[in-house]
This record gives sequence, C-alpha cells and structure tokens, in this order.
Amino acid sequence: MTDQTEPIQLLVDRLARLPGLGPRSARRVTLHLLKRRNSAMREVIEALRTAAEAVRPCQVCGSLDTRDPCRICRDPQRDPRSLCVVEDVADVWALERARAFSGRYHVLGGTLNALDGVGPEDLMVESLMQRAAEQGMQEVILALSATVDGQVTAHYVAERLRGLDVRVTRLAQGVPVGGELDYLDEGTLGAALAARRAFDTAGPL
Amino acid sequence: MTDQTEPIQLLVDRLARLPGLGPRSARRVTLHLLKRRNSAMREVIEALRTAAEAVRPCQVCGSLDTRDPCRICRDPQRDPRSLCVVEDVADVWALERARAFSGRYHVLGGTLNALDGVGPEDLMVESLMQRAAEQGMQEVILALSATVDGQVTAHYVAERLRGLDVRVTRLAQGVPVGGELDYLDEGTLGAALAARRAFDTAGPL
Repeated sequence: MTDQTEPIQLLVDRLARLPGLGPRSARRVTLHLLKRRNSAMREVIEALRTAAEAVRPCQVCGSLDTRDPCRICRDPQRDPRSLCVVEDVADVWALERARAFSGRYHVLGGTLNALDGVGPEDLMVESLMQRAAEQGMQEVILALSATVDGQVTAHYVAERLRGLDVRVTRLAQGVPVGGELDYLDEGTLGAALAARRAFDTAGPL
Repeated sequence: MTDQTEPIQLLVDRLARLPGLGPRSARRVTLHLLKRRNSAMREVIEALRTAAEAVRPCQVCGSLDTRDPCRICRDPQRDPRSLCVVEDVADVWALERARAFSGRYHVLGGTLNALDGVGPEDLMVESLMQRAAEQGMQEVILALSATVDGQVTAHYVAERLRGLDVRVTRLAQGVPVGGELDYLDEGTLGAALAARRAFDTAGPL
C-alpha cells in the first residue's frame, strides 16, 4: 500500500514537481487544501483556471498578460525609445516591483547555452533586432543575469546591435543595497572597486 | 499599477497563502505554471479537482480517503485491537510511511488549547471513547506531539480512558535516529537518559 490513496498521492506528486516545493511541502499543501475543500481549495482551482484561460504571451515583448499586446506595451506613458532586454518574465516583474524603469521590455526567453543547445534562434533575438531598429529607438539596456550564460548572451546581443544607431548599456555591478562587505564574493567586490564613483556629499545616502 | 495584472496577481496571492509558500515562491510557481498552460498547469488543475471531488473524511477514524470508511479502517489485515490516536491526518501519513504500525488510527483533529478555546468537544474524543470501549480492544497508543498542547491532550485522553479495560501507552521519548547528542536540547537528553535501557549486544545496531 502506498502512503496515501491515489487521488491524494497524485496531487502530492504533481505539486511536488513545482519549483521550490518537494514531497514534504507538497504533502503539507495537499492536506491544507483537502481540509478546506470548499474554501481555499475552490479558490485556488478557480484562480488557476482563470489564469490558464486569460493569460497569454505578449506578441510584442514576450511578457505575460491578459491582453496582447500587454499593458506595458500599450501604455502611452511608457517611453518607447528605451528598451530593457531581460531573460524571463520574472525579471519584468522584478523590475516593475522596483519601479525604477519607465521604458518597455523585451523578454529573450532564456540565455544562450551551448551545452544545453540553446542558440540565438531559440531566443527572441530577431524580434529584438526589429524593435531596436525602429525609428526613434535610443537605448537598449541589457538587464541580463551576472552569470556566465547571462554575460555571454549580453555580449552576443550587444554584438548584433552594433550597427544600429542606438545606445547599448548594461546594469551596473557592485555592492547590493544592504549588503555587508565581508559577506560579498571577491568578484563583486572587485567589480564594485573597479567601478567606484566620486563620493557625492550632496547626493542621496 | 500593480506589478502584475489581475488574474496573475490573484493566483499569486492565493498561492502565497498556502503553508510553506510566500509571495516569492508563489510568483515562481505561478510563472512556472503560466509557461506550461497545456501541461503542468492542466495537470495540477485536474489533480486538484479530482481530489476535491473524491476525497472525504472517514467517519470512523477521521482520516481522509476516497472511501468511507477509509482503506485502513476496512483492511482486514489491520489489527482492530490496537488503536493509535493522532492529532492530524498528516500524522497518519507519517506513521504509514514508517510502516511500523499495523493497527488502526483515530484522528483527534487537533489538541486541547485553552488559549485558542479548543476544548474536548472540538476534538473527536467521544468517538474515541466509543471505539476504545469496543469489545476486544486491547491497546490505545497516544501518538501525540511532544509539545505542551500535545501532552496536555494526552493526559486528558488517558484520564478519560482510565475506567476501560484497555492498555494506554504513549510513544517513547529519546534520541532521534541519526541525532547527534550535542545538537539535542536538554529536555530530550534528560528524557533519553531517564528512559535508558540495557545494552543488548545481540540486538540490532
């Protein structure tokens, strides 16, 4: 006999495959929901179904939204001359939470990786080239991860963009806000030191 | 503007309320599922719906199963003379995984807690009394948590069972298997020392 009967075990197995969950947390979530079949369970099912039906990729930027083009691509307040290139929709969400960028996004859908067989044709590079070449485009910000794959991808994209009349930038590297020096790796410390700036006593803390 | 559009945000919010998940892991799960609307998303919805429809509490022991009485209560191989009292269905699952018990279960549904206003009438104590008084019942094992609430509950149940012709036992306390002494709290060490046993060189390691 398995430790639970089939529909319960099936639910545990499927939840356990979700990122960040394992068998233990999947069992906990399953039991929580089974005890609340008419409240939390129903709400989760409804939210999943609504999202599954309503959400689709934006054909312009590759982000996810209930509309296509997405709200950011439609928003006349967002600067169409500045394009922020990210790997994943999660990065769009993270940057939006930071409220630090008022332009538009372009989601590549991953990074180049020769070992995994991910080439430029697997990423949204061609549509990026088209958007970057649009009249009035001023800046393409490469907001890719500071990993080997992210930086390889950034170099590839920067190379491809070279002929265009557009400024190509990348995110600053340095000490994270709130970061303590003695917990930082040497790479970050070295990058922060190399990119040091004049101390501006009039600036923000 | 919120950081995601409504159906996405709603899904994140509802997942974030599940035990062991927070906003961050809920966003990760949401994105994982939205990218797999025709595979993982569909499977999770189906598993949730099937479980929500098929699973119900066992009227005999209080566990959850697709049958009522549950498989354990129906199983003729399980000893009906031995009853293991637990707080929650999760404890039934844990004991079944350990494959160390061949009797039947009784799920109390919680522990007594005066502060939270949980009294005996809120737990499955009366049905336990009836089962414990059944002809042929030999042992009631109180497998309750080694917490204050668990032990208060165990004492209350043991007291109630006192008049019956049944052996009342509780789980042993001691060093957990694989536990290192210098990481254990004094309470556990004290209990393990007080309950020490003769070293049996013929026994299992």
